[in-house]
Amino acid sequence: MRELNKTIRGIEKIGHYLTARTQKRLDSLTKPRGSLGRLEELAKQVVEITGDENPPIKNKVIFTMAGDHGVTEEGISAYPKEVTPQMVYNFIRGGAGINVLARHAGARVVVVDMGVACDLEGHPGLVVKKVGYGTKNMAKGPAMTKEEAVKSLENGIEVFKEGFFAECIDIAGTGDMGIGNTTASSAIASVITGKPVKEMTGRGTGIDDKALSNKIRVIKKAININRPDTGDAIDVLSKVGGFEIGGLAGVILAAASRRVPVVIDGFISGAAALIAYRLEPKVKEYMIAAHCSVERGHRIILDYMGLKPLFDFDLRLGEGTGAALGINVVEAAVKILAEMATFKDAGVSEKTDKKR
Amino acid sequence: MRELNKTIRGIEKIGHYLTARTQKRLDSLTKPRGSLGRLEELAKQVVEITGDENPPIKNKVIFTMAGDHGVTEEGISAYPKEVTPQMVYNFIRGGAGINVLARHAGARVVVVDMGVACDLEGHPGLVVKKVGYGTKNMAKGPAMTKEEAVKSLENGIEVFKEGFFAECIDIAGTGDMGIGNTTASSAIASVITGKPVKEMTGRGTGIDDKALSNKIRVIKKAININRPDTGDAIDVLSKVGGFEIGGLAGVILAAASRRVPVVIDGFISGAAALIAYRLEPKVKEYMIAAHCSVERGHRIILDYMGLKPLFDFDLRLGEGTGAALGINVVEAAVKILAEMATFKDAGVSEKTDKKR
Repeated sequence: MRELNKTIRGIEKIGHYLTARTQKRLDSLTKPRGSLGRLEELAKQVVEITGDENPPIKNKVIFTMAGDHGVTEEGISAYPKEVTPQMVYNFIRGGAGINVLARHAGARVVVVDMGVACDLEGHPGLVVKKVGYGTKNMAKGPAMTKEEAVKSLENGIEVFKEGFFAECIDIAGTGDMGIGNTTASSAIASVITGKPVKEMTGRGTGIDDKALSNKIRVIKKAININRPDTGDAIDVLSKVGGFEIGGLAGVILAAASRRVPVVIDGFISGAAALIAYRLEPKVKEYMIAAHCSVERGHRIILDYMGLKPLFDFDLRLGEGTGAALGINVVEAAVKILAEMATFKDAGVSEKTDKKR
Repeated sequence: MRELNKTIRGIEKIGHYLTARTQKRLDSLTKPRGSLGRLEELAKQVVEITGDENPPIKNKVIFTMAGDHGVTEEGISAYPKEVTPQMVYNFIRGGAGINVLARHAGARVVVVDMGVACDLEGHPGLVVKKVGYGTKNMAKGPAMTKEEAVKSLENGIEVFKEGFFAECIDIAGTGDMGIGNTTASSAIASVITGKPVKEMTGRGTGIDDKALSNKIRVIKKAININRPDTGDAIDVLSKVGGFEIGGLAGVILAAASRRVPVVIDGFISGAAALIAYRLEPKVKEYMIAAHCSVERGHRIILDYMGLKPLFDFDLRLGEGTGAALGINVVEAAVKILAEMATFKDAGVSEKTDKKR
C-alpha cells in the first residue's frame, strides 16, 4: 500500500503555464492558425504533461499485461482460457497483432504475466509479476483479496518504474490479454459509472446472443454477491476485477507520477483507466484515449472521464493495438511542433488582416 | 485528350476474386475474427486494388500540387496569393506540415507547379507542369479554357506515370496548395453534388463571417455566369476549377489505371476526387478517404461518393497532411496481413464453438 500511496501522491496537477507559449509557437508555424486541429491539441498536451517545450518521443513502450479470470468457468467467453498463455508466447515471439502494430510505431512491447493461471516458461522478453494463478470466479465471491488488488496495482507501478529507470520512457501505451477480461471490465465499468450492466456488456471476442445474455446474468450476479463499494476503487478491483486490469491501472498511475503521457487502448484498458481515475482524478490529463472500440460500454467509459478518442476503427482486439496506432499519431503531433518552419524562417506572408 | 481517354479506359473494375481468400487468411491470424475492424477492410481493399496477396507498401508518394486562382481578386481568402509560391519553396525546403508528416509516414513528397502565377526558381525537388499563370477570375468568366482543363488532367496523369515508371509507386496520396482553392472546390462540389453553395462553403484558411458571405456570393456568381454542365466534369473543371485540382484528378485517374491505391486528403482533394469520379466512377474503389476535414461540405463530398473517412482530426491545412497520416494507417493494415502469426503457427487454440 505504501508504494501505491506514494505514487498517487506523486501525481501533480498539470500546470498550464506552457500552453500560451506553445500555442504561440504553433501559430508561428507555416499553416493557418489551428489548421492541424487535433494534432495541435496533442502537441500541447504532451508539452504540458512533460513540462518540456521540445518533448522527445523516442522511447515508446507498450505494456501488455496478461491475467486469467476464474469467471471463465461460467462460459462467458468464446475462447478457452488456454488462449491466455498461448497468446503470451505469441507476444514474446512477435507474431501477434500488437507486435506488428508496435513495430510499425517503433514502440517496444513489454509483456507482463500479471496472473496467468499457469507457470510460463522463462524468457528474457517476459516480465513475471504474477499476483496469483488467475482470479477466483467473481460470480461466487470476490475475484481476489484486497491485498492482491493492491499488489496488482503496485506490480504495475513497479513494471513501469523499472522500465522508466532503465531507459526513460517518453510515451507509454496500455494493452491487455486475458480470456474473460471483458466480463470483469464490464463489471468494473458498470459499478464505477453507475450505468446498467446491460448497457456496459458486449460480445467480447465474439459470443452469440445466448452467451451474451448469460454474460450479463453472470456480471449482475457477481455485483449482487460481492456488493463492491463504488467509492472505493480497490474494493471494486478486488471484487470484480482482474490482475492485469490492476496492473494496467498501476502503469497509468506510475506514468502520470513521472509526467509521462499514457495512451489508453480499448475497453479493458478503459476499465483500468477508470480504476486509476477513481484513485486519483488528476491522472485524466496524462491520458490520451486512442480509439473507441466496438465493445459496448467503451464510449460510456470515455465519456465518464471526459476523454475524446482519436479514432474509431471498429477495433476489438485489445493487446494495446489501438494504443500503438495512437502513439504513432501523438508522435506525428509532436514532430509538427519540432520540425515545421515558422512564417519568418520560411519567408511566408501571414494572414492579410494581421498586416492591416 | 488522347492520354486522358487512354487512362480512363485503362481503369478496370475491381474484381473481388481475392476477397474470400484474403478474408480466410485474416481469419487464420491470431485474433478474434474481424477484431481489427477497419484495418482488415483496408488490407482487403489494397489486395483487391493491387491484385497482389502480399502487397508491398514501400514506395509511398504524396503528390502536392500547387496552383493560383484568379478569383482571389474578389477577396475570398484570408491570405495574399503570394503565399502560394512561398509555400512551394517551403515544401521544397522540407519545412511545411506535409514535409513533417510525410517523413513520419516514410513517404516522399512530389511538389508540382501546376499553375502558380509566377515563374518559380528551378529546383531538383520541383516538378514544373504549369498549365498557366493562375486561373482567371471565375466570377467574371471561365477559370480556364477546356483545353487547359484537359491539359491539367493530363499533366497530373503524366506526373504520376513518370513517378510510377521511375520507381514503382505502391501507394499514392494527394495534396494541394493554392490560395483561393477552397473557393474553387466549393463551386465544383456544389455543381457536381447538386447541394446549395451555402452548405458547401466554409472558412478556408480562416475568414470571418463577412468574408464568408462574400465568398458564398462570389461562388454563386461564378456558377450563374458560367453555367457549368453538371454532367460534364471537364466543363465544370474549366469553368470553376483550378489547375492543381485538375492535376490531382489526373493523379487519381492515373493511380487507378495502374492499380495503385490512392489516399485522398481533405476538401480540395475531395473536389479533385469528384472530378475523377464523374469522369470514371470506377475510380471510387481505388480511393481511400483519409479524413473528414473541418471545411464545410467535405462530409457531403465523401457521402456523395460513398467514401468513409478513416479519422476526423479537425484538420484544414491541406497539402496532403491528412493523406500522410492515412497512408501510415494503410501501411499498418497491410503489415497485419503480412506479419501476423496464424493460429496454427503460434499454437493458439481457436474459438470454442468451432471445435464442437
